[in-house]
Formats: sequence, C-alpha cells, structure tokens
Amino acid sequence: MRLRISPEEHRGRMRRAWEEARRRGLDVLVVFSPSQIFYLTGFAFIPTERPIALILADSAAVLFVPRLEEEHASTEATVDRVVAYPEYPSERHPMVRLADVFTEMGLARARVGSDAEGYPGGMGYKGPRLAEVLPEVKVLPAGDLVEDMMKIKSPAEIALIRESTRWAHLAHALLQEYTRPGVVESEAAMRASLEATLAMARALGPGFRPLSWGSPGASAGYRGQVGTQSAIPHAMTTHARIRPGDVLVSEASASVGGYSCELERTMIVGPVREEHRRYFGLMVGAQEVALEAIRPGRPCAEVDRAVRAYFERHGLMPYWRHHTGHALGIGVHEAPFLDIGDETILQPGMVFSVEPGIYIPGFAGFRHSDTIVVTESGFEMLTDYPRDLDSLTIAG
Amino acid sequence: MRLRISPEEHRGRMRRAWEEARRRGLDVLVVFSPSQIFYLTGFAFIPTERPIALILADSAAVLFVPRLEEEHASTEATVDRVVAYPEYPSERHPMVRLADVFTEMGLARARVGSDAEGYPGGMGYKGPRLAEVLPEVKVLPAGDLVEDMMKIKSPAEIALIRESTRWAHLAHALLQEYTRPGVVESEAAMRASLEATLAMARALGPGFRPLSWGSPGASAGYRGQVGTQSAIPHAMTTHARIRPGDVLVSEASASVGGYSCELERTMIVGPVREEHRRYFGLMVGAQEVALEAIRPGRPCAEVDRAVRAYFERHGLMPYWRHHTGHALGIGVHEAPFLDIGDETILQPGMVFSVEPGIYIPGFAGFRHSDTIVVTESGFEMLTDYPRDLDSLTIAG
Repeated sequence: MRLRISPEEHRGRMRRAWEEARRRGLDVLVVFSPSQIFYLTGFAFIPTERPIALILADSAAVLFVPRLEEEHASTEATVDRVVAYPEYPSERHPMVRLADVFTEMGLARARVGSDAEGYPGGMGYKGPRLAEVLPEVKVLPAGDLVEDMMKIKSPAEIALIRESTRWAHLAHALLQEYTRPGVVESEAAMRASLEATLAMARALGPGFRPLSWGSPGASAGYRGQVGTQSAIPHAMTTHARIRPGDVLVSEASASVGGYSCELERTMIVGPVREEHRRYFGLMVGAQEVALEAIRPGRPCAEVDRAVRAYFERHGLMPYWRHHTGHALGIGVHEAPFLDIGDETILQPGMVFSVEPGIYIPGFAGFRHSDTIVVTESGFEMLTDYPRDLDSLTIAG
Repeated sequence: MRLRISPEEHRGRMRRAWEEARRRGLDVLVVFSPSQIFYLTGFAFIPTERPIALILADSAAVLFVPRLEEEHASTEATVDRVVAYPEYPSERHPMVRLADVFTEMGLARARVGSDAEGYPGGMGYKGPRLAEVLPEVKVLPAGDLVEDMMKIKSPAEIALIRESTRWAHLAHALLQEYTRPGVVESEAAMRASLEATLAMARALGPGFRPLSWGSPGASAGYRGQVGTQSAIPHAMTTHARIRPGDVLVSEASASVGGYSCELERTMIVGPVREEHRRYFGLMVGAQEVALEAIRPGRPCAEVDRAVRAYFERHGLMPYWRHHTGHALGIGVHEAPFLDIGDETILQPGMVFSVEPGIYIPGFAGFRHSDTIVVTESGFEMLTDYPRDLDSLTIAG
C-alpha cells in the first residue's frame, strides 16, 4: 500500500478548502496550524518560534517558511511556491515579511480568512497580528474551515490509521511480554517501542515515513500509570518498578505517514483481586455502552450521555474523570469530542478513540481505549487487541 | 542534590510575579502557558484541548484544571487552591467556569494581566476570550511578565540543567558507540536512549522525576540528519542506514525535574574527505566566534552579528540557514534568541544553545550545539563533550 497521502489528494484538499473559502466570500485563506498545514500540503515540520503559514489564494498556494525549512518544504510540500524569510525575530519581523508576500500577491486589501489572528507560536515567539501588519485587510475567523474537512477521514487516511494499528498492536504485545514484577515501567516501554519500531521500518521498507516529530515509529508504555498512580489519568513517569497486584494502564500508537491510532489497555499484575475484577468489568461495560451508542446521524453528545447514564446507574460518578473520547488522526486529540457538550453529528469516516475510564483515588484506574471509524451502519473497530481480563493479566 | 525545584522556590517565583503584576497596576495575573504554569507552580502536565490556567491574585494562587487533573494538580502544584471544572467542551464551557471563579474571587471587574487573550489550545479546542466571558474586566497583555523572569535561571535551575548534561553526554556517547555503517539511525538512537534513561533512573534513584511529557529521561539520535539529509536542519527520520562517508548531525538531551539541555554534534563516518574537514573546521570556527562574543552586558544581537560577519568573511552565506542560538531550560526553545533582531542584554544566569550551522544542499550539514550559561565574566560551557573531528569520526 501507499504509506503516505498522495500529492493528488493534497491538491484535492486544497481545492476543496479554496472552494469553501470562496463560498464564504473570502479572497484568501491563511493557515498557521501545523496540523492543518500538514493536512493540506503534506509538509510535516517541527513547530518552533519561527512562523510557518500556508496562503491559499486564487492565483496560487504559497507556503511561507523560515530559511532553514526552505529546501525541506520545497521537497515535501505540495504547493505552487515556497517563500522563505530569513529568520525569527531578525531585523525585519517575519509577520512583516508575510505582509510583503500579501502585497506582492495583490492581497493587501483582501478579505482574509484565518485559523488564528497571527502566529500562535510558543517557544518564545512574539509578534503582531495579521490585522496589524495588513491594516487594510479584513481578517475573519476561519479556523473551522479546514478543521471541519479533517473530521471526515478519506479512505487513504483510514488506511494509514489502520496500518498504524498493526504496529501499535505489536508494540503493545511486546510491552505486555516485557512487563513483569521487578521490571521498571520505562524499561518495558522503551524495549517494546524500540523493537516494534525496528520491525516496522523493516517490514514497511524504504517508503515508510513516520512524519511525526515525536515518534520515529511505534511506541507503547505506561507514562506513570502504574499501581495507585493508574488512578491519575495523565500521570507522568516516576520509573516505578512493577509489583504484584499492580493495575497498569498502557498506551500504544504508531506513526505512519503522519497518522496514528490510539490503543490503551488496563492490565493487572496478579494476583487479581475481586475488586480489580469488578472495576475492570464495569469499565469494559462502559466501553460497550459507548460503542453501542455510536451510529451515523446521532450527535457525539449522545454517546457520552449514554456513558454518563451508565456511570450513574452503577454509582460510578465519584470515579468519573473525563469524557468518552476524541477524534484523532493527524492530531493525537482532534475535534469533535464524544462529550455531552459536543452536538456534532456522527458521520461515516469520522475516527474516534472510545475510552471511558474509572479512577479510584488511592486504589487504581481502569481504562481501555480503542480507535473506531464510523461507518454507514455503525462503526468498525480499527484496533483489535484483546480486551478481556484473562488476556490482560500478567503473572504476579 | 535535589532533583527538582523546591516548593519554597516556587512560592518565591509566584511572589515575585505577583509583585511585578502589582507594580504594573494589575489586580490579577492569569497564565495559560503550560511552561509558565510549570515555572510558577511546579505542575507538569500534558496540554490538551482542556484549558488549564493559573490565577494569581492578592487573596490566593488558584490553579484551574479539568476534573481529570484535580488529584494530580493537588499533589504536584504549589498553589493555595485547585479548582476543577468537569470537562471540555461540556455543557457549560470551561471559560465560563473560569469566569465564575473570577466572580467568586471578587475579580469580575478587575484589571487582568494575561499571557494570552484566552486559552490558546490546539488539539481541537475552541472557546471565547477572557474579555468575552468577563465583559467588565480590563484584559491587558502580560505574556512578558513571567517570560522575563524565566530568562534568568536560578542556581537550582542551573544545577538541574547541569545534571541534564551528564545524561545527555551518556546518551550521546552510547549513540556514537552504536553508530556503525549498516546500522539504521533509529536503532542506534533508540538503543542509546533506552540505556541512558535506565542508567539515569538507577543512578538518580527514586527522587528522579523527568517531569517531561515527551521524554522519560535521556535521549540521543539523528532525527533524519544523516548523509545528504544532514543539510536539512529540521529533517525527519527516514530510518536511513548509516553508510561510510555519511555526515551525521546528532541531538541529545535529558529531562531532570522538567529542565533539559541541548547537545548536538557533527560526526563523520570515515573515510573523512578534505571537504568534510574544511566545513567541519569552519563550523567549529563559527562556534568559537559565537562563544567569544558572549559576555554579560552585550546585546544578544551582537553574538549573531559576529557569527554573520564570520560567515561573510568565509563566503559561507549561501550555506547559512538560522540564527546562532536560543535560550532554553523548561522549553526546548525559549526567548531570548542569539539573533541579529534580538536586542535583549545578556545577563548572568541566562542559558543558551550556541549552534551556528553550515548547510550545503545535496552534500551535508555541519552543526555543533552546546549549552552555556552566561556568568559575571563571560560564560561557562555546561555541555562538555568532545568537539574535535578526531573524537567525532566513526570508523567507516
């Protein structure tokens, strides 16, 4: 299979974005978000203090990059032109250079749609808004334009996410194999990630590009969710040693052509206690309830409402900590959300994590996360890793 | 040594931030930046679509977090109070909840300084600005307030960065050891990172916390800067196999209590050609010029100007791609920058990467990066890894 999105698909995406921009009466669309730029052009880069922007106009698709990304962008991005500015902050600020590009393109008085009022930055970036450097343009918010397109994954995107699940499975299977009492959590994690990544690179061959700054391939680990710390959903590692009786919450993924999946499992190091069994069962039950509620045409909120009702029914609300799931693909979290406050209608091609969790402070946390795609008739499970307690029990 | 910043130091930082806020006539300071929140409170977290904000007022320092971070923040953050909202987006938006907290604290008409007009987000977040949910407050930009404090590192911060260099060295030494013709770059990288991280966890013991989402400890690798791709400063891995004659540009670091260093080296897989030797020497010369220019009282720009003059003198401007360096500590890039456009005055306690690079498209890139701290009399090199070609040549 093709291991990344084709230039043709990127051109089609830009055409659709541009058509929607026209429909909204815009003369130009400016995109600062790294994931939206990657979605439209295929250019994966490390975001820094140096602004990068995509300018979509009738005349051309122009990628505005710092000098250090010029050759990289010219090779990787499906655009008409790459324009480089020297550096940030430099003597002439990059946003002033961006204004020059607008002027050169005859857009100094345009109606501009943008996903941000200026480069959002971070990493020490400071700078003026678009409207400040282009006083005669009218800047209108258009962050939803590309974001909405990204919500429905194409067959090629789903194929990449599916490919990602294969290697997330391998990484997770290795993690499980290396997890034994006495082992430090990070050792099991790093060994599994190393082996799965090398297997992935060998199997997928020279066409394989993770296209992710954070990960060279597959990864699996616990990130601190070990023992009582499994009750902290976003714990950070303390390099804890695995002990008999520990509840573990894992996370595994893999980057293929810039796309990834999410696979998480609750594992228990024996001896398994009755209380473990009970909460594990309740957690799997909550995930079942969520999955049963996923159907095209329904609002996202309904899925989360079904899960909340289940939590209420079973007296679990004291142990509720977060919504049922989130979209994903290029981003590890994307909109929409399986959340009581998100009325977005589920549509075929949307990809979500489904991961209601139960967290009992001082005892343990219980969460599986699977990646699903909404289909015409319901959903398809993309991750396909054992979910039952027997398969997820580690000898104590 | 203490492996993280003490609660006393965090309290001192918040006191200083608050005093500066008062001096500016503010009634309250709101901070959304994850690194600024970590700097002030010691709370390291995974930023997501769920807003997190620190509210510093006369009455209290309040950390506003989603429910899933409540226990985590209560344990980790040095604040007076943690206030949790249920979830994002939820039926009542988190920013509306934040407005409630302001009202409860008697701040609904306050003069508010903030590092952002609202939660900058990403990951699918959308929401109103502070001024929209609190129509009677006056919101003033104050992003520079904490950023300025962060520029001068305390002795405890420098000690953590120094500790980081020890493990970045180990990771880099292992990387160099595992780099041989025929080896896939990511294999050498992941093996070195695994071993260095485990050594770090063993040596530093149970008090060790990386406090970094991205890295459980030490790391070293090439991230794609192998062979001709070393000419792409921000390349991404292609899992290339190391070959004789390759120029490699590495990067190594380690996270200790949320702080890290930057160590990068140009290595050459033999046979070393005359052209390699020439550019390597020119690159080391450029770094020397930069280091010689670092002295308290001088503007950052002067360091970069000295390097640019060196590039001009040696006809290297066609191969120039980026400024001389950036501050770092909590962030991998922080302000100020060793850049002709940054007139910030160098002061004792500032920590910078010094990394002028030479990039010849289609041939190779040459860059060392060292981490230095500005002292009363000049600077001290914190990274201390061989810089000469003989030490950095790998048998071909």
